[in-house]
Amino acid sequence: MKSIKIGIIGFGVVGSGVVKVLQKNSAEIEKRVGRKIEIAAIADLDLKTDRGVKIDRKILTTDGFAVCRNPKIDVVVELVGGTGIAAKFIETALENGKHVITANKALLSEKGEKLFQLAEKKKKLLLFEAAVGGAIPIIRTIKTSLAGEQIEKIYGILNGTCNYILTKLANEGGDFAEVLADAQKRGFAEADPTLDIEGGDTAHKIALLASIAFGTQVDFKQIHIEGITKLSAADFEFARRLQRKIKLIAVAKKENGSLEIRVNPTLLSVDSPLAKIDGVTNAVAFHGKNLGEIILSGPGAGSLPTATAVVGDIIEAARGSGIANRGMAEDSLEKFPIKKIENVESEYYLRFGVKDEAGVIRDISKVLAKFDLNIRDILQLDLKEFQREVPLVILLHKNSESKIRKAVGEINRLKCVCGKTVVLRVEE
Amino acid sequence: MKSIKIGIIGFGVVGSGVVKVLQKNSAEIEKRVGRKIEIAAIADLDLKTDRGVKIDRKILTTDGFAVCRNPKIDVVVELVGGTGIAAKFIETALENGKHVITANKALLSEKGEKLFQLAEKKKKLLLFEAAVGGAIPIIRTIKTSLAGEQIEKIYGILNGTCNYILTKLANEGGDFAEVLADAQKRGFAEADPTLDIEGGDTAHKIALLASIAFGTQVDFKQIHIEGITKLSAADFEFARRLQRKIKLIAVAKKENGSLEIRVNPTLLSVDSPLAKIDGVTNAVAFHGKNLGEIILSGPGAGSLPTATAVVGDIIEAARGSGIANRGMAEDSLEKFPIKKIENVESEYYLRFGVKDEAGVIRDISKVLAKFDLNIRDILQLDLKEFQREVPLVILLHKNSESKIRKAVGEINRLKCVCGKTVVLRVEE
Repeated sequence: MKSIKIGIIGFGVVGSGVVKVLQKNSAEIEKRVGRKIEIAAIADLDLKTDRGVKIDRKILTTDGFAVCRNPKIDVVVELVGGTGIAAKFIETALENGKHVITANKALLSEKGEKLFQLAEKKKKLLLFEAAVGGAIPIIRTIKTSLAGEQIEKIYGILNGTCNYILTKLANEGGDFAEVLADAQKRGFAEADPTLDIEGGDTAHKIALLASIAFGTQVDFKQIHIEGITKLSAADFEFARRLQRKIKLIAVAKKENGSLEIRVNPTLLSVDSPLAKIDGVTNAVAFHGKNLGEIILSGPGAGSLPTATAVVGDIIEAARGSGIANRGMAEDSLEKFPIKKIENVESEYYLRFGVKDEAGVIRDISKVLAKFDLNIRDILQLDLKEFQREVPLVILLHKNSESKIRKAVGEINRLKCVCGKTVVLRVEE
Repeated sequence: MKSIKIGIIGFGVVGSGVVKVLQKNSAEIEKRVGRKIEIAAIADLDLKTDRGVKIDRKILTTDGFAVCRNPKIDVVVELVGGTGIAAKFIETALENGKHVITANKALLSEKGEKLFQLAEKKKKLLLFEAAVGGAIPIIRTIKTSLAGEQIEKIYGILNGTCNYILTKLANEGGDFAEVLADAQKRGFAEADPTLDIEGGDTAHKIALLASIAFGTQVDFKQIHIEGITKLSAADFEFARRLQRKIKLIAVAKKENGSLEIRVNPTLLSVDSPLAKIDGVTNAVAFHGKNLGEIILSGPGAGSLPTATAVVGDIIEAARGSGIANRGMAEDSLEKFPIKKIENVESEYYLRFGVKDEAGVIRDISKVLAKFDLNIRDILQLDLKEFQREVPLVILLHKNSESKIRKAVGEINRLKCVCGKTVVLRVEE
């Protein structure tokens, strides 16, 4: 039987991982697919660096578009990343009748619509399991196993860099900058970590999950995104005393025809399943009317886990599976309005820096009462890192963000309050 | 477009759940499949009991074989269970060119081989996601997402009844029989719970997972199976003091061309991911060369979660996906020898009932030393439930079951030892 020929564009960490996995498991893969999978071309601007894999140098090229147009190639694997030239590669490959596999969450979540439409038109697969959660089968679970279910809520820990940093800060304390530097040294954070630590990468992923789970277009710019850079050692100490863990949580929830979608550092009860997900591990929970809660967890990044997901997609394309691109037929997607963050309700954690004097709690609680905000817990600690101020934490019962913002604005103007209040969500 | 017509055989808890899910989510499903799914026939011997769903009584029949032969039906859903007539239904349906969906782990793990061969021959799908772990996408993950990976080890908590009982005994103490009766009352245990509590159901499931993950035939009779009925309140108290949880763990592991496959009550460190899976929840962990560890968890049983998995399979069949039946091509399966339990190594927990007199530990440790068994922990508790004897627990470092058995046999004959020693595995 004719072999399946693939072309890889982008020979970096994941690209070389894909070559390794295909070479190492070639016998099993051939057996499972019924055909050989052959790497027919690899494109990268850097053809010199040793990737630690044996390949015939004749298949190397610097011309990605030649790979997309090569009539011998059946499947193009785009691993360039970014929202620029990667889009052109995918378009060209689809136009030329190739199935496309990508791990590019930024591109798909910001500009995926046109690419998916093109894939539908060309009746080709555009698969992207590796875009979210590395080897964890999140995308395929939504598209196939849960295709008979109305998913109501997705929430998860979708960024390994943030979770590594948060875990380390929770377990060992220390300073954010130090821990970030350590993560960079270990290869768990990029040289420019902004997209990770400011929550953008997590937002790309939850946008993609929401779009396939709810069959909706998500306008990326409307997603409320908070990163983890505002957290200080004090927050981890308070969380510990309150029997909670701080995690960067992405949420997408469909309710009454509108979509709640956001990324927040969140205090979870230590007993909740996601509180137990530590280090670079990712996890995602699905809630549905019929299924209750399903949780999938595993390594969210890394060369070989991500490559394993890419190879899973290559095998799906090679098998010529009839699974629709987005788990749905050709109909245009619905567009649910995205709920304004001001109207989203949750419990809250407020950390104030207050003067060490009488009447502080009276003044703050007066403002909270004015906005009808009900105190659930209150905790003041004598922490060394604070010198001229005392950290005071108040947990509030469920309320809308708009009320909290108004109250916090007023509290920040009180004379007894120094600096800006840290506001975090609290969820069970 | 023509609708897909399905016939359901077995209108019990899961069968009526399938009808509910198909009715409730019909709009979404039609959109995702591109065609309507129509319930064309339901067969059951009992046509009188109200299942709480609205159906046209004209589609009801007591003749399952008529459903399997009905030329209008595209997909037959077998939910009769058991290894008897269910096999005939599946055979007849495949012979008549229908795709078949089943949740029947007993049948597939004991006699699946012939049925899968028949499905291959007829080029029809025989899907069984609901057979293991309810709505958790375990089977599909092995067949698709991990098709590019060499899975090395699968282990999991695969029986909700046992996990419910073990969780309750760990958290609230009490007597096994009482907790079982409570589980029966709540519908978490069958009237005849033998298959669950003696480990047979778990063994069916791990056999099925091993066969698809490793591409091997598993001779069900060779699986080492221990249930949870030998556990007493003392074991849970000891486990608690040793910072461990007792779980019924199924393991399948491929190593050096042979297969380790077994079901044992096992002490896990409280920090290990499976130790945190409580109640009727199921969880399965996959280890692979490239992917590290992936864990999937969720409700392992129940009408609607199981029905959701069945409907996921119906949708896969309706989409006419090209995924091979067992995640591999037509080749005959390999048959790895199953490792004798005597040769399987692990750490051990031994609970002795000893006389309250001097020299007991000397005598027992003398036997252990004779067999070169190295003590890791030793703990004696003054528990009320024991009257004439004192419970003594010894944890041993890693060793083979054969040595342990010999040593325990000798220790059981010591004068200072009353009754039989309880032997459990300890794993990290």
